[in-house]
Amino acid sequence: MSRLKVNITMSLDGFVAGPNQSEQDPLGIGGEQLHGWLIPLRAFRETHGEQGGEVNASTPIAVEILANVGATIMGRNMFGGGPGPWGDHAWQGYWGADPPYHHPVFVLTHHAREPLQLDGGTTFHFVTDGTESALEQARAAAGDRDVSIGGGASAVQQYLAAGLIDELLISMVPILLGGGARLFDNLGEQVPTLRQVEAIHAPGVTHIRYARQ
Amino acid sequence: MSRLKVNITMSLDGFVAGPNQSEQDPLGIGGEQLHGWLIPLRAFRETHGEQGGEVNASTPIAVEILANVGATIMGRNMFGGGPGPWGDHAWQGYWGADPPYHHPVFVLTHHAREPLQLDGGTTFHFVTDGTESALEQARAAAGDRDVSIGGGASAVQQYLAAGLIDELLISMVPILLGGGARLFDNLGEQVPTLRQVEAIHAPGVTHIRYARQ
Repeated sequence: MSRLKVNITMSLDGFVAGPNQSEQDPLGIGGEQLHGWLIPLRAFRETHGEQGGEVNASTPIAVEILANVGATIMGRNMFGGGPGPWGDHAWQGYWGADPPYHHPVFVLTHHAREPLQLDGGTTFHFVTDGTESALEQARAAAGDRDVSIGGGASAVQQYLAAGLIDELLISMVPILLGGGARLFDNLGEQVPTLRQVEAIHAPGVTHIRYARQ
Repeated sequence: MSRLKVNITMSLDGFVAGPNQSEQDPLGIGGEQLHGWLIPLRAFRETHGEQGGEVNASTPIAVEILANVGATIMGRNMFGGGPGPWGDHAWQGYWGADPPYHHPVFVLTHHAREPLQLDGGTTFHFVTDGTESALEQARAAAGDRDVSIGGGASAVQQYLAAGLIDELLISMVPILLGGGARLFDNLGEQVPTLRQVEAIHAPGVTHIRYARQ
């Protein structure tokens, strides 16, 4: 059965991006360090058309991130291109002509835009009528496969607060960013309850899997 | 060689105590849940004069918390008794006549007080001249054994910001408190760098050990 899941890397002090995010620093100041565990892996490099790389205890996690995912939901800030209307030469995302998704991606935004079809099976759909609509569309596109929330913090928070997330895989890195986008914030009065499923020690990162209680 | 170490339980959203701490709720609203992994353990119950209890993957961690510790430092808020001067019938701490420390404990406070000697080798010393003085006194008392910072958040932050902590063992529980005392806060401009040493999956908790980089 299709699940709604999140795989996200968080600093020890709770941030999924550093302060002062911009087009130059999409993950904010210092935020690139967050993915220091992922980038050198062969499993990651392969999805970006590169050879070589490391194999370690994080490999199954890196493989899993896109495995069995039929659709992704992300916030406008993660897709990028600044806030506000899209303009004439609209931003096409951070991932080039052939993004690593290879499935439909639903971008939460207040600004309507035609779908953006790129190479390799990735089409970005811009959803202006809210998180529930995005989830419905993503589930329909994913079929039996899972729906993944790619980020950022705000998108994850909205689905978490609504109690809709089935599985949360936090990759916790030993970095203190001191500021930025905090993952577990704005969760409202009805704080979700989680159950720890497993924890994996890997070089420079601890992967902890949580399920909805 | 004597090390300065911290063992502390943190919620997934980064709190070591819930909101609205009081004498009735020393760990704030919901904060008691933090130690749900520790309280049922035989290793913990033994230190409180009780029999029975569980043995699981957290047992070595519970044993380690007080092993080889020759002195503890804690903040005034953790010792309790409210802020301000001590008064005539001064608060004797949360731990009864025979506290589980069995070594000298140095309490950071702005209010002078004579040492409080209780049963079983625990004497509380009240240090009014700052964190460095407390550390010097604790090191002298501990000899070759380690010095542990018991908490709370503010005490840990001050030693962490000063780059003085050798080892940090975070027991991360799958609880979202939504507010309270945040552990990794107020760390200043020179954010400390840490190295992940190990991570241990145990029932309802992940123990992650960090060392100073």
